[in-house]
Amino acid sequence: MTTYKAPLDDMRFALFDVLDGEAVLTGLEGGEEHSRELIDTVIDEFARFAEEVLAPVNASGDAEGCHFDKATRTVTTPKGFKEAYRRYAEDGWAGLTASIEAGGQGLPAAVGTLTKEMIDSANTAWGIYPLLSHGAIDAIAHHGDDWQKEVFLKRIVDGSWTGTMCLTEPQAGSDLGLLKTRAEPNGDGSYRVSGTKIFISAGEHDFAENIVHLVLARLPDAPAGSRGISMLVVPKFKVNKDGSLGERNSAAAGAIEHKMGIRGAATCVMNFDEAEGWLIGAPHKGLMAMFTMMNSARLGVGVQGLGLSEAALQGSLRYALDRLQMRALSGPRMPEKPADPIVVHPDVRRMLLTQRAFVEGGRVLAAYASLQSDIEARHPDAQTRQQAGELLSFLIPIAKGLLTESAQECTKEALQIFGGHGYIVEHGMEQLVRDARIITLYEGTTQIQALDLLGRKVMQLQGAGLKRFLDEIGTFCREHAGDDSLKALVGPVATAATAWGELTRGIAARAQANPEELGAAAMDYLYFSGYVTLAYFWARSVAALDRSRLSASARQAKRDTAAFYMARILPRIHLHKAGIDAGVATLPEIAGD
Amino acid sequence: MTTYKAPLDDMRFALFDVLDGEAVLTGLEGGEEHSRELIDTVIDEFARFAEEVLAPVNASGDAEGCHFDKATRTVTTPKGFKEAYRRYAEDGWAGLTASIEAGGQGLPAAVGTLTKEMIDSANTAWGIYPLLSHGAIDAIAHHGDDWQKEVFLKRIVDGSWTGTMCLTEPQAGSDLGLLKTRAEPNGDGSYRVSGTKIFISAGEHDFAENIVHLVLARLPDAPAGSRGISMLVVPKFKVNKDGSLGERNSAAAGAIEHKMGIRGAATCVMNFDEAEGWLIGAPHKGLMAMFTMMNSARLGVGVQGLGLSEAALQGSLRYALDRLQMRALSGPRMPEKPADPIVVHPDVRRMLLTQRAFVEGGRVLAAYASLQSDIEARHPDAQTRQQAGELLSFLIPIAKGLLTESAQECTKEALQIFGGHGYIVEHGMEQLVRDARIITLYEGTTQIQALDLLGRKVMQLQGAGLKRFLDEIGTFCREHAGDDSLKALVGPVATAATAWGELTRGIAARAQANPEELGAAAMDYLYFSGYVTLAYFWARSVAALDRSRLSASARQAKRDTAAFYMARILPRIHLHKAGIDAGVATLPEIAGD
Repeated sequence: MTTYKAPLDDMRFALFDVLDGEAVLTGLEGGEEHSRELIDTVIDEFARFAEEVLAPVNASGDAEGCHFDKATRTVTTPKGFKEAYRRYAEDGWAGLTASIEAGGQGLPAAVGTLTKEMIDSANTAWGIYPLLSHGAIDAIAHHGDDWQKEVFLKRIVDGSWTGTMCLTEPQAGSDLGLLKTRAEPNGDGSYRVSGTKIFISAGEHDFAENIVHLVLARLPDAPAGSRGISMLVVPKFKVNKDGSLGERNSAAAGAIEHKMGIRGAATCVMNFDEAEGWLIGAPHKGLMAMFTMMNSARLGVGVQGLGLSEAALQGSLRYALDRLQMRALSGPRMPEKPADPIVVHPDVRRMLLTQRAFVEGGRVLAAYASLQSDIEARHPDAQTRQQAGELLSFLIPIAKGLLTESAQECTKEALQIFGGHGYIVEHGMEQLVRDARIITLYEGTTQIQALDLLGRKVMQLQGAGLKRFLDEIGTFCREHAGDDSLKALVGPVATAATAWGELTRGIAARAQANPEELGAAAMDYLYFSGYVTLAYFWARSVAALDRSRLSASARQAKRDTAAFYMARILPRIHLHKAGIDAGVATLPEIAGD
Repeated sequence: MTTYKAPLDDMRFALFDVLDGEAVLTGLEGGEEHSRELIDTVIDEFARFAEEVLAPVNASGDAEGCHFDKATRTVTTPKGFKEAYRRYAEDGWAGLTASIEAGGQGLPAAVGTLTKEMIDSANTAWGIYPLLSHGAIDAIAHHGDDWQKEVFLKRIVDGSWTGTMCLTEPQAGSDLGLLKTRAEPNGDGSYRVSGTKIFISAGEHDFAENIVHLVLARLPDAPAGSRGISMLVVPKFKVNKDGSLGERNSAAAGAIEHKMGIRGAATCVMNFDEAEGWLIGAPHKGLMAMFTMMNSARLGVGVQGLGLSEAALQGSLRYALDRLQMRALSGPRMPEKPADPIVVHPDVRRMLLTQRAFVEGGRVLAAYASLQSDIEARHPDAQTRQQAGELLSFLIPIAKGLLTESAQECTKEALQIFGGHGYIVEHGMEQLVRDARIITLYEGTTQIQALDLLGRKVMQLQGAGLKRFLDEIGTFCREHAGDDSLKALVGPVATAATAWGELTRGIAARAQANPEELGAAAMDYLYFSGYVTLAYFWARSVAALDRSRLSASARQAKRDTAAFYMARILPRIHLHKAGIDAGVATLPEIAGD
């Protein structure tokens, strides 16, 4: 069984010391009170909730799973899950980052990212429920009518109701243009929604008295494809415009999926049978509305990767320090014991440092992206808001892709450190691997992130975000060029950033001749971008050490991990460049037998 | 649900066309009848068993798992498992590669490797039971007394009994020198064995009337550490020297482990409480006896990786050809359908080709290693036998390491191709990932393989196997240097092989100054070695195409996959060289908090 201790010192280091988050956040509209002191109090408090309420029901929730009752079409969540949610709602966490007008606390997204990481380290499956509510909050807040905000939004924000996002259908996964669910107008402003949705997280459960489904569907006059999709709100229990609850709506779970992991999260097949729903936003603009909330959902999934990797690091570091097995190659380190702790073996340290490099570097990346989201939402200057939005939109596929793929690597290495014991349920490592496996798939597979990054964010949008980010890296490198203590970090970052720009231009030239080159290059480009991005944040982390409050040993660990990153992780970019250079010619057609 | 079709054509290609297996095998003592025709018949027959008997109970076996009854200390295996074993034994498969004297068929190890791959593709969990019996057969055949061979060996060979290997204890995993199980002489040649063993595969089950445990333990006068370990045979039911069954021995399962995967395989805690046992081989030489059978056990686990990867490839290729989702970037390929099959996306092809490169290249590697084992056992010339033994011993950690680690990658990519559907139990992909996760852990973790390769096989043994293998690669490259159709393959192989030698000399020099450099370099060296090895076998595969019986489309696929391998997999060696160059300095000490 793993125990979880929130890495509060490192969270503070990332947000305040590396990224100067206090100055950024208190300079935003409505952010005057968001001091380091306030935020410290908030995350301290949340850490106790994650450690004491969520973590203890993580393994049991996995073992128990969710149970579906066919007769009543209801789901029972694992023991302790709904009680944890009740407390979460009562303590006001459900609305932590929601606007004050909607009844929320109005705290920055950057703080929400820290608390979300704690949830995901402590109990990823439980965290699916609030994650989906966040998506619904975003959608209704941005696109809902006033009465919808009053009736639906406030109840999700106060935690008495929860939300879902109903996108996928059996024939429509990555390709939402293929979806078939229909919505027919009743003439009174409401619609009859009919269709089957699959993979609906939190589609049915016992946390709350009502569930608010946001459903993508086609109106009768909808154009074909992705331009003919509308978004509707379809509650489990019908709701009158005055907020009073009506009868049971014909929107119900038909089954729950049996999954590799996140088994405490109910993943439902949802059947809508002329269910009453209401349009959210304009007709046929549902996909666009969905995309406006995609940034925060995708970053949220990246943070799941971060949380899972942190839990893996904590468990495997503890084990590596405790487990006695064999002697160091250069002679016994603890001759008084029957064997040395396995951390004496260099490759065990490589596995630990790999995790630390992704976790701590990734934490800065996630905090940085969240800050851009806060700046985009609430900076007084319009141009600054726009620029932050461009940067965020560019970084989202990188953060989602890198943090979820590196979580596969981190949880794999953590399990490996445990040897055969890692394969046994009781140590908790194998659950982390299973829980982590979903995150490269949902909210857009890594391949989808890669195409979004290279095809849309870099090529179609003329790379505004990339240019801004490369400028920022360039400025940092120039400013620290004379700093001897940073030379070994700044040099590789500057070289890699230059290579990133050249690589981008090279792909653009080739893609003009053959658009398939984009598809062939996208994954390698995503990894290349991710590794350079983390290298930059590692260099910035070390540059921030002198002004930090970290202990001397934590500072040394930062320097060691940064050096490790530059020597052993960043060189992966050469491999990805080789893949891009190899091009689509090395990925020929594949026929069936 | 996956369906499995044994890749018989490619198996034949690997063994007969690439490796000239018929000439090799029929030239061995007792091998006169082992013609291609005979072997074809054997593997045809076994394919039906794997496809029709084992595969259908793979998913159900995972869902059901094994059940332990505390009162009787017995294990019930999943439905269909024991019936499959009964049929396997009745049809003579249990003794396929065992010697004719012991009642076996005396077929080559190379054939056993092909049938084992089929088992592991069809049902890895079920395959654990015969795998352990094979280990016991090897141990008793090499080290047992005549009566032990008569009483124990013949019954395992005919399948009426099964075997286990009882090594691990809670405090002794990779470090067997720490084990505590004791064996006290009774004075009549028998011993009283007491201790607790964990992670004992097939330790208890309902397949057979008796289970023969090979237990590592200490005699009263044993020296400390790994030089004081003896091997004993301890049956579940006592056995008289005339072969008649006696009373229940005090060797029983205390529990079964709850595991991430291979859930149909019973992994037991075994309690020995003054259980009656008999010494196998000389006192205190148990670890050495165990090592003599390690080669085949480790290769067997490598073949599990191969089998799992083949199953992953079959499932994901079928899905990629069938699943319609989005259009090709260069325009619709199947405009008459609602979307194109996802195989049109270059990155889907990259994931498929990655699997194919490891599976088909790995198949040649496994067949090659098995042939060395056959040559070592039965070649008429002593020097040839010795050389084959050196080569085999060198290749084992490479094969085990590479085939098990690449299985992690292959099963991950296969699941990824399925998108969210891959995460759902019913498609079978997630089971492959879970089943595969054990193989980098047991029979020595990948880290142990890496230290065995670099520390023992290359450094301590002066690299005899490496030298021989590099000579062979060099000869191949020279012989084909003028062949234009192979130039793009032979060039990279020759360069990589030269680099392999240089790298080895560099590490040797550094390790003299600091032995920790070995530990720091070992994993990267293992991967480097593995990727060069597969590159060689891919070049040999293409060189063999013209004399093969493969179809034209299968030949083209071979050429494509070989080119893919050279362009996109082999360049990984540069990353591993960078890791080795970075050295132990970048893996500094790690302290607890």
